[in-house]
Amino acid sequence: MKTALLLIDIQQAFDDASWGKRNNLEAEENAGRLLEFWRKTNQPIIHVRHHSSDKNSLLHASNDGSDFKSIVEPIEDELVVTKSVNSAFIGTNLEGYLRKENIKTLVICGLTTPHCVSTTTRMAANLGFKVLLVEDAIAAFEVNSQTLWLAEPDKKLSDPEFIHQMALAQLSEEFATIVTCDEMMDMDLVLNAR
Amino acid sequence: MKTALLLIDIQQAFDDASWGKRNNLEAEENAGRLLEFWRKTNQPIIHVRHHSSDKNSLLHASNDGSDFKSIVEPIEDELVVTKSVNSAFIGTNLEGYLRKENIKTLVICGLTTPHCVSTTTRMAANLGFKVLLVEDAIAAFEVNSQTLWLAEPDKKLSDPEFIHQMALAQLSEEFATIVTCDEMMDMDLVLNAR
Repeated sequence: MKTALLLIDIQQAFDDASWGKRNNLEAEENAGRLLEFWRKTNQPIIHVRHHSSDKNSLLHASNDGSDFKSIVEPIEDELVVTKSVNSAFIGTNLEGYLRKENIKTLVICGLTTPHCVSTTTRMAANLGFKVLLVEDAIAAFEVNSQTLWLAEPDKKLSDPEFIHQMALAQLSEEFATIVTCDEMMDMDLVLNAR
Repeated sequence: MKTALLLIDIQQAFDDASWGKRNNLEAEENAGRLLEFWRKTNQPIIHVRHHSSDKNSLLHASNDGSDFKSIVEPIEDELVVTKSVNSAFIGTNLEGYLRKENIKTLVICGLTTPHCVSTTTRMAANLGFKVLLVEDAIAAFEVNSQTLWLAEPDKKLSDPEFIHQMALAQLSEEFATIVTCDEMMDMDLVLNAR
């Protein structure tokens, strides 16, 4: 049994100002720390990237923004999984790879908490994988009040930190164990999770 | 192209007091209205039920609580899909059935908003189906403050109506169009969605 690190959509396009305010500005740095640790301990690493089918998207493959951020750039023969929807399990070989490699536990980090991270976490758990979600290596963007479904005049509801926390509250226990980057760097914990 | 009604986990076990407070007490009645309308208009109907693999669960098949509530009981040859995780697409023939029948749009109702309804909605959207989520035919339970991941001392966060609304806010636009039961009963809207 192995524990894989799954890095979701840590791509340059998410630096674009159009996304608005974000929480956890240190998420990429923490994901980079996890990546370095996984490399040192020779555990499986899976880089997931989003390539939108929309040519006008910042995440279309023709756009430089679809490149990985340098802090988490894949090296050598590390696996890269390319997806076009929120879940990293749909339209990809991810599940087959995990089964073949007998990987039972996933440590998930990346962007963004309510969308691709949440959807991939829910599906991973439902497929029978144990998920450790690294709360300080994932992040959410604000929701524009015009597009926010809730009519309630409460600024807090569009705040990225609040959106992040509410997504974690929905995932915790039912789908994932919420951990911190420091906890994951503790070798004993990682080994026990194997 | 057809529009299917997907009724998720409207089972007797959810009447058990152990779930705590719930919002949208009229959800089953509204789901029953939708079901009657789908029968009258001869559109596809899919009943989803949860059978837990845990023998101690209220939703284990050996428990009467796993039966459908009478208001949405399947009749004749209506399809029943049995699942054991949150997503109705995992471990079932649901996707294959929808492809075979050329069904492109799903109208989703049932229990519970943040768990099985949200996970099935996210996965349906990612598989390419258009989802209409009926906000007054789905419902959420309170979260016990002891198990709530958020430490914030804010009673609102464990309130079922608030949990329901925050789940909808995450699903709206990215994964589903939020509609009301009355809107869905408007024949023109249903026909246009086909």
